[in-house]
Amino acid sequence: MNDRNRPQITSEVTEGVCRLLYHHRMACLTELRLGNGRRLDVLALGEKGDLWAVEVKSSVEDFRVDQKWESYLDYCDRFFFAVPMEFPRDLIPVDVGLIVADRFEAAIVRAAPEPDRKLSAARRKKLLISFGRTAAGRMTPEADSEIFVL
Amino acid sequence: MNDRNRPQITSEVTEGVCRLLYHHRMACLTELRLGNGRRLDVLALGEKGDLWAVEVKSSVEDFRVDQKWESYLDYCDRFFFAVPMEFPRDLIPVDVGLIVADRFEAAIVRAAPEPDRKLSAARRKKLLISFGRTAAGRMTPEADSEIFVL
Repeated sequence: MNDRNRPQITSEVTEGVCRLLYHHRMACLTELRLGNGRRLDVLALGEKGDLWAVEVKSSVEDFRVDQKWESYLDYCDRFFFAVPMEFPRDLIPVDVGLIVADRFEAAIVRAAPEPDRKLSAARRKKLLISFGRTAAGRMTPEADSEIFVL
Repeated sequence: MNDRNRPQITSEVTEGVCRLLYHHRMACLTELRLGNGRRLDVLALGEKGDLWAVEVKSSVEDFRVDQKWESYLDYCDRFFFAVPMEFPRDLIPVDVGLIVADRFEAAIVRAAPEPDRKLSAARRKKLLISFGRTAAGRMTPEADSEIFVL
């Protein structure tokens, strides 16, 4: 049994994920509100405009209550779950990517396959605009970062 | 005669410009290195993906030594010079936008016309990617923001 609480685990796994993706030359934004009303833990943007979405699951229960994670597939080129070391990995569907992480390190245990549907050019443009506006908005003290949704 | 130095004036005008553009619902990034090797003072991104470039000129001399500002036109939909209150405005070419600003307020004295050439979809996509990666990279302590150039 782990005595750390859920927000703390989520935060630590997220930190490890961002460090990992940074070394993959992806720029990360965390806790993005999507057009479908859900909040995505990490969206990473690569040099060619490729978008990787990562949803952090702090525990088995956290994973089990999420019935709608498949809606994230509409917002990225690759989708990963990221879980702490002690998470039972065989619970994660085999057709999505898997990252195992703690605060200090992270590894891509299974690469995310290309999805069946490619992002349309229009959807990608919209995502790139939202990514840039959200990131820039967060650096502006007076800006409300929530006004820019994907 | 003004006793403030050039970096201070540039910084104050930039601050006013970003506040103004924020109220125009543009998200601003400052001091971006462009693919042509130059550094642009402000690039602002609107909801529809429109890109406004603003070059700050702290003094008449600062304006006069810049022989290459027209190269910025290739990186935006609208181009503005931004100058402090005391700058003689009739020096600024009439076919670009003009913002007058200090640290606390700023006004668009002349709207920037649409340029003759529209940004291509490919160039805009590249700019959107760079904008997002640069902005997100600046929030990552370990990231070197200079690795992402437009």
